[in-house]
Amino acid sequence: MNFSFAVLKTDAAGARRGRLTTPHGIIETPAFMPVGTQAAVKSLRNEALEELGAQIILGNTYHLYLRPGHQLVRKLGGLHRFMSWDRAILTDSGGYQVFSLSELRKVTDEGVRFRSHLDGAEHLLTPEKAAEIQLALGSDIAMVLDECIETPAPRQTAEAALERTTAWAKRARRYFLECARQNGRLSQWQFGIVQGATFPDLRRLSAQQLVELDFPGYAVGGLAVGEPHEVTCEMTAQATELLPREKPRYLMGVGRPEQIADYVALGIDMMDCVLPTRAARHACIYTSQGRVLIRNARYAQDPSPLDPECRCSVCQRYTRAYLRHLFAAGELTAAILATHHNVHFYLDFMRQIREAIEFGNLAKFSSEVQARYAAGPA
Amino acid sequence: MNFSFAVLKTDAAGARRGRLTTPHGIIETPAFMPVGTQAAVKSLRNEALEELGAQIILGNTYHLYLRPGHQLVRKLGGLHRFMSWDRAILTDSGGYQVFSLSELRKVTDEGVRFRSHLDGAEHLLTPEKAAEIQLALGSDIAMVLDECIETPAPRQTAEAALERTTAWAKRARRYFLECARQNGRLSQWQFGIVQGATFPDLRRLSAQQLVELDFPGYAVGGLAVGEPHEVTCEMTAQATELLPREKPRYLMGVGRPEQIADYVALGIDMMDCVLPTRAARHACIYTSQGRVLIRNARYAQDPSPLDPECRCSVCQRYTRAYLRHLFAAGELTAAILATHHNVHFYLDFMRQIREAIEFGNLAKFSSEVQARYAAGPA
Repeated sequence: MNFSFAVLKTDAAGARRGRLTTPHGIIETPAFMPVGTQAAVKSLRNEALEELGAQIILGNTYHLYLRPGHQLVRKLGGLHRFMSWDRAILTDSGGYQVFSLSELRKVTDEGVRFRSHLDGAEHLLTPEKAAEIQLALGSDIAMVLDECIETPAPRQTAEAALERTTAWAKRARRYFLECARQNGRLSQWQFGIVQGATFPDLRRLSAQQLVELDFPGYAVGGLAVGEPHEVTCEMTAQATELLPREKPRYLMGVGRPEQIADYVALGIDMMDCVLPTRAARHACIYTSQGRVLIRNARYAQDPSPLDPECRCSVCQRYTRAYLRHLFAAGELTAAILATHHNVHFYLDFMRQIREAIEFGNLAKFSSEVQARYAAGPA
Repeated sequence: MNFSFAVLKTDAAGARRGRLTTPHGIIETPAFMPVGTQAAVKSLRNEALEELGAQIILGNTYHLYLRPGHQLVRKLGGLHRFMSWDRAILTDSGGYQVFSLSELRKVTDEGVRFRSHLDGAEHLLTPEKAAEIQLALGSDIAMVLDECIETPAPRQTAEAALERTTAWAKRARRYFLECARQNGRLSQWQFGIVQGATFPDLRRLSAQQLVELDFPGYAVGGLAVGEPHEVTCEMTAQATELLPREKPRYLMGVGRPEQIADYVALGIDMMDCVLPTRAARHACIYTSQGRVLIRNARYAQDPSPLDPECRCSVCQRYTRAYLRHLFAAGELTAAILATHHNVHFYLDFMRQIREAIEFGNLAKFSSEVQARYAAGPA
């Protein structure tokens, strides 16, 4: 068993400095996971991700199941080998994408039936199937299938989804443990997902029910989908208060730089978000001084780096004027350079967060970041 | 004066192993120049080009004049500094793009009036203006403005274009030398361009007229635009026979791997072509065994590298199955990896060509390549 998690230090607010060990290396937490939806972090070679110090990336089960297919990936030695990435990988369950991307989805107690957004073919995703796919992919951390609903949701809808999510979590856990027993060893960690929409008591109920299933880690899902940041924080707090302190906690799909420290202060250890990579492709650059919209005419003759305080290889070499030109000219290189920088920004940001926890000054760090990002993009 | 060219060895057929020295480094010839149209070789960071050993790249005057503009580039320190590339750069004159990309072009003895393909704005490109733009860009090698015509062309059209090309070359040379005199030093080499369509005697006449203008190097233009390979070779031969042996010769816009050795055998020292980069973006991979169309279903489970004989960083790490998946999924990383490999293939191919000249076996090398590429893509 090559998995472990240790909380190295906790600050007064509840932020945790930890270390997650996997068969594919150590992840210093709190950690941000760049998103590699289709077995690639968009615009970056793995070599770049290694240079940037990424210790874990996220793969999307929904996408990889549809294309190239989990059986093909397994045949070629698993996702790590398929994409030639030997650091850690977390895969989601596919649930969120089924609910957001696919057509004609129909949820029953059995699972969710949907049509592929690629070719319209019909598929059935069950808790067991989601676990099976992720075992075939061979990710280090797998997520259970949950039922995702839109928020705000009527209480009745949220209750029904929660009940189903817990029932699915039980089935997923049972299936996973049976597979592990048959294999004789555990090459993957399976995390449960707390749901409950925006109802504090449902979030607590969900957390309690999942804790009983004794997952090695827990995620908080269904948040940061449009509700106010305060609500995201409140719901997260309801969950983390009840989750075991010795196990890792993952807040799914977050977040903006000015929000990350808040989540960390609530005891979150892991996050993922398409923001740094997607924003980069749209010429939105994250810097120590706030967001820079690099297409802006004001940068046409600007010989300074994207971020004067940044030490990434893009900022060491290229200017704002050049990046602006590449975006204006529609060059692929624009996305490559901007993505490299933005992912560096996020990973370096997490390094600063970890340092702030160690020195006990996360609150100060957080308020400084918020001040710089309050002004809006430049 | 930091420019020089030396022919180190000539083989029996007439192939030349040479060395071109510029203020931005040495170029071993015969050389292939990757095309960086808009101040970037598509899909590649400069770091990748350096890893690949590119000693010179090509920039397009037409594109850079329209966007970001040569005055802006000059203000920011010239093209090398603007794009952060400190190895050699050759810029074309803009003539070919004016004739192929712009609208409503009208050629007079003064120059060519055209509308930008970007915004429809009217511009006048004269021999002097083309030289001025390239001096502002600060490329190491600049090309004179020539009149490009479609082939096959009536003899009368070809004669008129030739006459104008020579007249423009005289004006460009005069303008350039006057600028150099005023500057007190020569920071650029200016090359003449032999035209003459597909008429052997016109090609000879053009070469003779240009030689009289005493350029430090000569290009052969207006070829490889649809005519049979044998005609390209015949026209090239007509020109190179008359061009000074001690000066570099550049065949513009070529070529396919199976053709390159033929051009080299005719005494060509430099080439450029969008083929390796453009083909890469369309999933066409150049390998030691011929072309591989990597989207083909046969590669879906192929765990071998793109080219088992290739030593590039892509072939060291990634599989055909993975590349095929990235193309199928529409990932930008597909273009990045395929371009890296294809440019490596071309640059390594030129290394083999240079070695073959040194060992006196270019003909054997050439026939082996042709055999491998004769079968068509796999």
